[in-house]
Amino acid sequence: MAEKKSLTIILHSGDFDKAMAAFILAAGAAAMGMTVTMFFTFWGLNILKQGGVKKSKLSKMNMGGLGTIMMKRMMGKHNVASLGQLMKDCIELDVRLVACEMTMSLMRVSKENLIQGVTEIGGVGTYLKAASESHINLFI
Amino acid sequence: MAEKKSLTIILHSGDFDKAMAAFILAAGAAAMGMTVTMFFTFWGLNILKQGGVKKSKLSKMNMGGLGTIMMKRMMGKHNVASLGQLMKDCIELDVRLVACEMTMSLMRVSKENLIQGVTEIGGVGTYLKAASESHINLFI
Amino acid sequence: MAEKKSLTIILHSGDFDKAMAAFILAAGAAAMGMTVTMFFTFWGLNILKQGGVKKSKLSKMNMGGLGTIMMKRMMGKHNVASLGQLMKDCIELDVRLVACEMTMSLMRVSKENLIQGVTEIGGVGTYLKAASESHINLFI
Repeated sequence: MAEKKSLTIILHSGDFDKAMAAFILAAGAAAMGMTVTMFFTFWGLNILKQGGVKKSKLSKMNMGGLGTIMMKRMMGKHNVASLGQLMKDCIELDVRLVACEMTMSLMRVSKENLIQGVTEIGGVGTYLKAASESHINLFI
Repeated sequence: MAEKKSLTIILHSGDFDKAMAAFILAAGAAAMGMTVTMFFTFWGLNILKQGGVKKSKLSKMNMGGLGTIMMKRMMGKHNVASLGQLMKDCIELDVRLVACEMTMSLMRVSKENLIQGVTEIGGVGTYLKAASESHINLFI
Repeated sequence: MAEKKSLTIILHSGDFDKAMAAFILAAGAAAMGMTVTMFFTFWGLNILKQGGVKKSKLSKMNMGGLGTIMMKRMMGKHNVASLGQLMKDCIELDVRLVACEMTMSLMRVSKENLIQGVTEIGGVGTYLKAASESHINLFI
């Protein structure tokens, strides 16, 4: 029997397009039966905050918010799942969502500020343990 | 006999310096006999468009285009291969160049707009399959 | 006996928050007994230059330097090690610090401009050899 494959993603960026890429990869991998761990640190932690998804902007061509709106419109038109929907899919598919403890201290974010799907709060050791046993490790 | 090593790269960025890094790694790995797959998504897809290499700019210190021009001049002076040359090398060395299907829809890019060396159009599953069997996986 | 785990990081970015993430990961992994190689290229090479740590700025919310100052103040308050301290820890823990030869040529950086902890100057082949034998490979 083939070994179960696994993926870890550090989401350091809070940009909309980077978060989209991270959740498309995570949801795709989980749907294919892979074990997936996501670790949210620095700006990436914002995505896990209540209301954080709505605030994220494109890393390029944002044009005062217009670029992000246009991108979302194009996504809807082409049946690409929204960032919020992808996150729900990931939670449903048991993707492990780890919030970085150090970033929470630095940015004064408490557990109550985070969305419900967050599975745990952890540090660099939590990430390194998962990554050292995984097949694909990405920093986004 | 040693196992053949393999590298995958997701190029999400369209920045000149990030694309340079990606193609230097890919060409180097292919020249060393490694199997290489590059997956072009979001802004990274622009690099695969006809004329796309010329439009890419430095992620920092672009200074209205001047920084990019200076960097290219320094590269020429120090015998660093140009981005266009590195892409030709990669195609010659059988690097697999995969264009992201979803990004093509979102950005209204058709197959005819892409350079000739593109080997296929694929999705997240195409990438995950290659990456789960590779030794080095990078997100750039 | 379990195999010794290993981590490689390409630091392409010169941003303060990206460098922090890289050195937190490297120091953490080395402290856990992992073999760690860091490869500094493009803007990331600036971090290895004498005085380079002090010049690095946040990738977002820098606000003319104010954001970086505030972040450093919060780090001090919450007992997060400074970037300079993390680099010292990495050197003490035998993290291999490789400066990219091509970037040194392009940016006219000589060996004398680099900090003392740099263990070697190398190219893409040096990186690929280390990464193809490592468990975790990140591009930051």
